[in-house]
Amino acid sequence: MEANIRKRNITSDFINDQVDTYLENLPNIEKTINRLQGLMDSNHADDTTTDTGDDETVLPSTYIVIKVAENIPEATVKWLINKIKGKKRDGGAELIVMMQPSSGDEGHVLHISASKIKFLEIAEEMEMVKTDRNGLMREFAVAQLEEFLPEDMHVDDLLTTSERQTIVRHELENIRALPDEHHVPGFQNYTLYEGQSILQVCQIYKVITGIFPLHDEEALKKLGRKWYRSLFKTQPIEEIRLYFGEGIALYFQFLAFYTKALLIPVFLGLLQIFVSIETVPFFCVFNVVWVTLLLEIWRRKSNELAFKWGTIGMTSMDEPRPNFRGTMGVDAVTGKIQPQHPRYITTVKMYCVSIPIVFICMVGAFIVMLASFWAEDYIKMSDEYYQQFIMLPSIIYSVLVWALNLYYRKLATYLTEWENHRTQSQYDRHRVTKLVLFEFVNNFMSLFYIAFIIRDMDMLKSQLQTMLIISQMICNLQETVLPLAMKYMSYRMMSYKNKKLTDHKSSKSKITRSEAFDETKSMFNLPQIQYDDSRIRQVNQECIMEEYEGTFDDYLELFIQFGFVFLFSSVYPLAALWAVINNVIEIRADAFKLCRIFQRPMSRRVKDIGAWQRCFEVLSALSILTNCGVLYLSPQMRSQAPYLDEVKWLLIFVFLEHLLLGIRYLLHITISDKPEWVRVALARKNYESKQALKFERSQRNKRLLTRRFQTIHGPHRN
Amino acid sequence: MEANIRKRNITSDFINDQVDTYLENLPNIEKTINRLQGLMDSNHADDTTTDTGDDETVLPSTYIVIKVAENIPEATVKWLINKIKGKKRDGGAELIVMMQPSSGDEGHVLHISASKIKFLEIAEEMEMVKTDRNGLMREFAVAQLEEFLPEDMHVDDLLTTSERQTIVRHELENIRALPDEHHVPGFQNYTLYEGQSILQVCQIYKVITGIFPLHDEEALKKLGRKWYRSLFKTQPIEEIRLYFGEGIALYFQFLAFYTKALLIPVFLGLLQIFVSIETVPFFCVFNVVWVTLLLEIWRRKSNELAFKWGTIGMTSMDEPRPNFRGTMGVDAVTGKIQPQHPRYITTVKMYCVSIPIVFICMVGAFIVMLASFWAEDYIKMSDEYYQQFIMLPSIIYSVLVWALNLYYRKLATYLTEWENHRTQSQYDRHRVTKLVLFEFVNNFMSLFYIAFIIRDMDMLKSQLQTMLIISQMICNLQETVLPLAMKYMSYRMMSYKNKKLTDHKSSKSKITRSEAFDETKSMFNLPQIQYDDSRIRQVNQECIMEEYEGTFDDYLELFIQFGFVFLFSSVYPLAALWAVINNVIEIRADAFKLCRIFQRPMSRRVKDIGAWQRCFEVLSALSILTNCGVLYLSPQMRSQAPYLDEVKWLLIFVFLEHLLLGIRYLLHITISDKPEWVRVALARKNYESKQALKFERSQRNKRLLTRRFQTIHGPHRN
Repeated sequence: MEANIRKRNITSDFINDQVDTYLENLPNIEKTINRLQGLMDSNHADDTTTDTGDDETVLPSTYIVIKVAENIPEATVKWLINKIKGKKRDGGAELIVMMQPSSGDEGHVLHISASKIKFLEIAEEMEMVKTDRNGLMREFAVAQLEEFLPEDMHVDDLLTTSERQTIVRHELENIRALPDEHHVPGFQNYTLYEGQSILQVCQIYKVITGIFPLHDEEALKKLGRKWYRSLFKTQPIEEIRLYFGEGIALYFQFLAFYTKALLIPVFLGLLQIFVSIETVPFFCVFNVVWVTLLLEIWRRKSNELAFKWGTIGMTSMDEPRPNFRGTMGVDAVTGKIQPQHPRYITTVKMYCVSIPIVFICMVGAFIVMLASFWAEDYIKMSDEYYQQFIMLPSIIYSVLVWALNLYYRKLATYLTEWENHRTQSQYDRHRVTKLVLFEFVNNFMSLFYIAFIIRDMDMLKSQLQTMLIISQMICNLQETVLPLAMKYMSYRMMSYKNKKLTDHKSSKSKITRSEAFDETKSMFNLPQIQYDDSRIRQVNQECIMEEYEGTFDDYLELFIQFGFVFLFSSVYPLAALWAVINNVIEIRADAFKLCRIFQRPMSRRVKDIGAWQRCFEVLSALSILTNCGVLYLSPQMRSQAPYLDEVKWLLIFVFLEHLLLGIRYLLHITISDKPEWVRVALARKNYESKQALKFERSQRNKRLLTRRFQTIHGPHRN
Repeated sequence: MEANIRKRNITSDFINDQVDTYLENLPNIEKTINRLQGLMDSNHADDTTTDTGDDETVLPSTYIVIKVAENIPEATVKWLINKIKGKKRDGGAELIVMMQPSSGDEGHVLHISASKIKFLEIAEEMEMVKTDRNGLMREFAVAQLEEFLPEDMHVDDLLTTSERQTIVRHELENIRALPDEHHVPGFQNYTLYEGQSILQVCQIYKVITGIFPLHDEEALKKLGRKWYRSLFKTQPIEEIRLYFGEGIALYFQFLAFYTKALLIPVFLGLLQIFVSIETVPFFCVFNVVWVTLLLEIWRRKSNELAFKWGTIGMTSMDEPRPNFRGTMGVDAVTGKIQPQHPRYITTVKMYCVSIPIVFICMVGAFIVMLASFWAEDYIKMSDEYYQQFIMLPSIIYSVLVWALNLYYRKLATYLTEWENHRTQSQYDRHRVTKLVLFEFVNNFMSLFYIAFIIRDMDMLKSQLQTMLIISQMICNLQETVLPLAMKYMSYRMMSYKNKKLTDHKSSKSKITRSEAFDETKSMFNLPQIQYDDSRIRQVNQECIMEEYEGTFDDYLELFIQFGFVFLFSSVYPLAALWAVINNVIEIRADAFKLCRIFQRPMSRRVKDIGAWQRCFEVLSALSILTNCGVLYLSPQMRSQAPYLDEVKWLLIFVFLEHLLLGIRYLLHITISDKPEWVRVALARKNYESKQALKFERSQRNKRLLTRRFQTIHGPHRN
């Protein structure tokens, strides 16, 4: 009965609602229209620039620079430029290309930008997450532009330069080979497969020598002041994220979190020096529990950040990475046309080829390590004369490991690429796993050998000390501060020289260069950048900077340190102290390195630290085994209970170990991996979208239904 | 530039789209309108019935029967009926109540039903999942009615009786106490708290003696024929689900899956009889890996089913269970008004009170067990005379365990209720965990004691044999088949007697009863059920049947059996054979029990087997420890390697155990817990709803925007 009335009332309610909404939204909508209007006018100006190549107009900013190799045929460059400028329907990216003046023999340098409307459109398409007026992070949508703009913000400031770079890069990477393109024009044997990312192929074949975004000097200076210049302040993670992207911000957050968490073991380690040996097992037990706890808490923290950054929903079904190979087809999830490749092939390749190869390499590295130990033993036991060569096996081993590592890295990268993982996160995870397994053998196996085969605790301790202080500290200095200083100086000199050179050139060969360039310009019909544009100096400076290879090496350093600190904390509890000192320096050094030494890295979206979480977890589980093992073998401990027979003594430690593993498991299942508020927020989002889907599906029907009901029952019965 | 053109074309596209959609959907919509029209007309008829209590009209079917206790004041019954019939805005459920004729001194029996439109509305609100025309499972929506109806199906057949019962039950349970209701009318000391489920409170205070759905004789007969009557066919899981709900269907699916998986250990167990002792470790290792594998595969299977049944998205944020207590407030996820209770209080209660109490009880049970062993030992070692009492400790122990268990169950239920978990799944999980911990001590600790303290493998074997064959098989027979037969007979007799009684009464006291009832009828103004309605006989039969208490006992039986089979499979590998024989019988017995002996249970939505998954996993991990331990202690094994010293011998098994734990971990991380197709389907659903949300948010703006653009640029420039 009531249902009847409700149904009959719907019509008038519906109309009232519509009118209310319209009136409510009117001011906002007016504003959006005005702003978009403004954008489109300026966009129009951009278009004119692009079309006519008129260099009187102000050129848009450069977001990505592409360096084409020397002596590339004109046809190839033209093809590339057309791809970048071309229409979407022709497989192009619809970006703006500008030419940097260059003499004919140097490679061309292309500056890539995009129109203002384009940025907003792609930001929506890429599901970029922005803070709205209510302070909530949600996916940006052009139609809701106004909701993302605080009163005082201009629409041009909505996207940060890092976001714009990401957008341009994304569009560039998504220029994919069409079915009828079988090779790079001008190079018959540079084959292209359907769906391959053209720019990636060009990079592999060295047609393009570099694709990199430009630093933002202004922002960098501001960031640096808050970051590496202030030694004991919290890092400005949000600013780091905005400038360098989620991947790098998460690394620094993890580093800071882990360093803070180390303070407890440092305290215990210092305490242990002053108290007698019997307390060691208790400290050791505490340490082991602490490690588990810290990793669980990190997982929560990381999920919290991922939620705030809008990356928590990333899955293996997301947009494929540029180098993902497969025939173009309809995606099962999104319905977009994307490269498709059956997952089981990847799995088969992984289990049947990669894993066996990695395993063989690990065994190989282990044998090399054993050989070095045996050689050392052999020398020790031989004549007086040979004793002078006692260091030789270690040195040979070190060199060998270095060389092996170099080749292994290439192998691991090749294998992971060959496995053809769909997303960047999957690719990273599998590559990291392969590399870490090998590094594990190289870095920790000798410690295991000393602890459990040689059973010499003093040797173990000194080995740990050496590795932590010498290897880590000195290496760290050598790796970062020294080259930092050198590079910084050379960079200063270079820029000075450059400036002089430019001045010299500009005064002298302006005419010839200009002529050469005018020729190029007419050839490609592109807008050109002025000789005196500061961008040219910046490109010249930054293109000789080193490329930042990703966070792998930084995490690896932490991983090895983590192992040194926790695997044998019962033998050398002070390790944590050295680690903390090292990390405090490391944070600043890494920060400086990123800001001043490397080319600006492309920002990369991540939802967690990937394979590293699991790597650290496995290490923390191993630390239970090793610490119990070391305690069991320790003669000091044994002397505490001389009345126990050997088997009982061993059983005590087996029991202790199982107890700790049990505690670990309990901690793992009781600590939920997302904070309550994140779970609620995700559930709400999920609920809202589900409702929206229902609404969308039923709305069309409903409107027509109510109209019909109205005609049947007349308006407003009752 | 292109963006401009696109924007300008939007208007005409938009209109064309609208027209197309309209034309496309027209036939469907016509149909929906006609059907709904039909429904509303019949609904109108229902309404008349309800209002006037005119018993000439055909009454709707009964879905839930409520038995009110004897001697309950009229005011209380009236209050209850008004709550059930009342409007939503007055805190009512808007259901149809019918009265069963009864003499004044018996308790009233209420038959609850709902109008046809109501069923559809609540089905949408409860997010019930139905198969649509394309064979996809998705949430039902009234506005898309047509999409869920195959050509030949009438709209009345859309919801199964079990679904209708769930809907009615759901509405009944959601009648919650209003802020100004402080006690049950007529009973000053039956307190009510805001937000409490009124019917639950009435049941606790025994105002209502029973709420149960009625069996569907027709469907039951069909189900029985396919299920317990055909011994070696696959179970009709889909039919079971439709009749009994997801919870029970999943139990039977698990039982079948587990039994099939047991065939491999049976085969190995039989093989082991014929080969020498040295192969035991290999079989044992295989068994241990097999168990891990079977649980991982089950998890996949279970997720697959949960997806098909639409329960995979259930979370702790879902609708609260009826007994969840808390002040009424706005739900953070859905925005609905629901009881709110801070989660941390539950957590604190759990960790600070429940867990310590459970732990103390476990220790108590352990001590009782030890005492029984000590008493037995003591008797063994004393005079000849006392030897006749050798069985006494065991008997006393058995009785004591039985009694302790009884009290402990009450305690565990009370504690879990007191912890106040939000959803039924959470409640079940925590209750099951508490109960299983205690059962673990009772059932397995004695085996551990025999294996590792007494170290008598023959005793262990005979104990296992006794427990499996005697306890399990005989107990099973005693628990199910015997009472089944008895109850079946008594039920036959009862129905015969009842029939006679009714005949007798109807012929003799028809007038007096009719008078008494007419009085009640006028008192409550309700439609009455005819004396000769078959429902009355059915209610009389079913209300004396036992209530099915949920799947706990059934799972527990499996859990104990699982422990007997796998914990010591190296000692008694034939255990699997007995288990399989038992399970084949169990499936049919349980099925018969459910169909014929118990009241129809309310269907319950579950997404997995809950805490049991983890319980089985812990048991499978423990089986690694116990089997390695037993192998280490086995004298036959020891005699294989007399040259090894004790410590080395122990280390071998410690190593073996760690290896197996490692393999377990690897299996766990490499086998993903959802099949690929489920992951893709979930991702697609997620993507679609995200898109819908975006669309909904921007649509309003967009429409107005395009209108504005049109006026600015005029229609169709270009």
